[in-house]
Amino acid sequence: MSRRSHAQHAELALLLEVTGTPKPGNVDRQRDHDDLRFEHFVAGAVGSAPGLRLAAGNASLGLAFERGVFGMADQTAGNTQFGALLLLVPLVRAASRGSLDREGVERVVESTTVADACEFYRAFEHVDVAVSDPPGDLAALDVRRGSEAIPALRGRGLTLSDLMAESREVDGVAEEWAAGFPRTFEAAEWILDDERPVPDRAARAFLRLLADRPDTFVEKQRDAATAREATERARAALAGETDPEELAEAFVAEGVNPGTTADLIAAALYVALERGLAV
Amino acid sequence: MSRRSHAQHAELALLLEVTGTPKPGNVDRQRDHDDLRFEHFVAGAVGSAPGLRLAAGNASLGLAFERGVFGMADQTAGNTQFGALLLLVPLVRAASRGSLDREGVERVVESTTVADACEFYRAFEHVDVAVSDPPGDLAALDVRRGSEAIPALRGRGLTLSDLMAESREVDGVAEEWAAGFPRTFEAAEWILDDERPVPDRAARAFLRLLADRPDTFVEKQRDAATAREATERARAALAGETDPEELAEAFVAEGVNPGTTADLIAAALYVALERGLAV
Repeated sequence: MSRRSHAQHAELALLLEVTGTPKPGNVDRQRDHDDLRFEHFVAGAVGSAPGLRLAAGNASLGLAFERGVFGMADQTAGNTQFGALLLLVPLVRAASRGSLDREGVERVVESTTVADACEFYRAFEHVDVAVSDPPGDLAALDVRRGSEAIPALRGRGLTLSDLMAESREVDGVAEEWAAGFPRTFEAAEWILDDERPVPDRAARAFLRLLADRPDTFVEKQRDAATAREATERARAALAGETDPEELAEAFVAEGVNPGTTADLIAAALYVALERGLAV
Repeated sequence: MSRRSHAQHAELALLLEVTGTPKPGNVDRQRDHDDLRFEHFVAGAVGSAPGLRLAAGNASLGLAFERGVFGMADQTAGNTQFGALLLLVPLVRAASRGSLDREGVERVVESTTVADACEFYRAFEHVDVAVSDPPGDLAALDVRRGSEAIPALRGRGLTLSDLMAESREVDGVAEEWAAGFPRTFEAAEWILDDERPVPDRAARAFLRLLADRPDTFVEKQRDAATAREATERARAALAGETDPEELAEAFVAEGVNPGTTADLIAAALYVALERGLAV
């Protein structure tokens, strides 16, 4: 087995995610966006390591996430791995407790507190994250208010797990939190069952996840129709009807960026590494 | 300034080194060798982090290096960054003492002990490293003997700095140790003065270093004539007479791998990051 710590596995998962190619619409080993390049993801992964170590230790889960985002944001391109860290932190915590499975991570989710929710809001002060507008009655809880929203959060007694449950319909990362990380664990098994180099496995699993369900980041950044269409095109590429490399070129040109699916791949790679995936 | 620790800067330098492309003959963002791929360097960098943290702390320099190599070797392709770590460890130590300049790193080199030399030999037990045969009277000190050579080492009272001075003629990393890291600091300034994305700067500095002097890894793995010819071809690419991308294709096809020059780029990137290079 590997000598890597849980936090090192998580950091390596972030790096392998961005290495996997083609991951249509994402920054990957072969493709950059204009102001968001491969090296920003690399620096983001390295910067997140202290937060990941906190997740493997005894700090509050919210603080581990906030510190991870703080370090991740230490590069010039802004948000690279906010969603991936939000998935990784509870998974690392579960692994460090010896139970990296759906029950184990559900226990971690259920144990989150209002204080964790406050740290989650503080994390939004480090980077601009694409989010939907909250419904009118929840304007006080807009995450973009950062720590200014904390009194409203405390007033309602919302835990981090409550926040995730609120957003599950519109956010694929929150849905994993609310549902026990089913897609993460499933994609980890795809990656483990594949026999090619790890980045190729990551790219294949990405296409499968995207073909399976529209990406909520595309829904937010563009619209639901674009996200549905992206999933149909991923399905065609998976079926061999179109070339994934061409789809990658097309998505980058069109500005279709399935970032939530990439977050899930980072999480799935982490689980696979913990389960013995060799690089 | 960055929030990264000295060890994080060093790990990031390893990752940015392998990201820079084209670095003719090396694994880089665009090119793999058959059994030595990009992801192996990524895993090597992540694995080396605990050793790099020791280098920034109070562990013996030799132990920091040995632990760095031990973690680096935790991937399936063998040696990826032995030489780079041998350069980084004294630089990280100097930075952690507040004096990352030639005088500071010379003080670190001069302070090495016989115990550091013993740890250096132990590091060779973790990976196969390309080395030249020692002269007949030094066969007992062949690094490939690993810790079996330690009695001979102790008998002669050789420090790690002594070992590096012994090898300086045939090894570009040892030459840096013996000479006060002149090429490392010079290339760091090239990188800082350049204005393009960091991986492009790394690739340019690589070509300049290779054009300046034959690579000792090519000398060992192939021969002196091949190394001299590689430097001439790098000079032509630098002068714009040939395309660096074509040179990269040619070197990979011919099995010309200027690995020592890549090690120097990792070290130079580290110094540049410590001096404010933003990613």
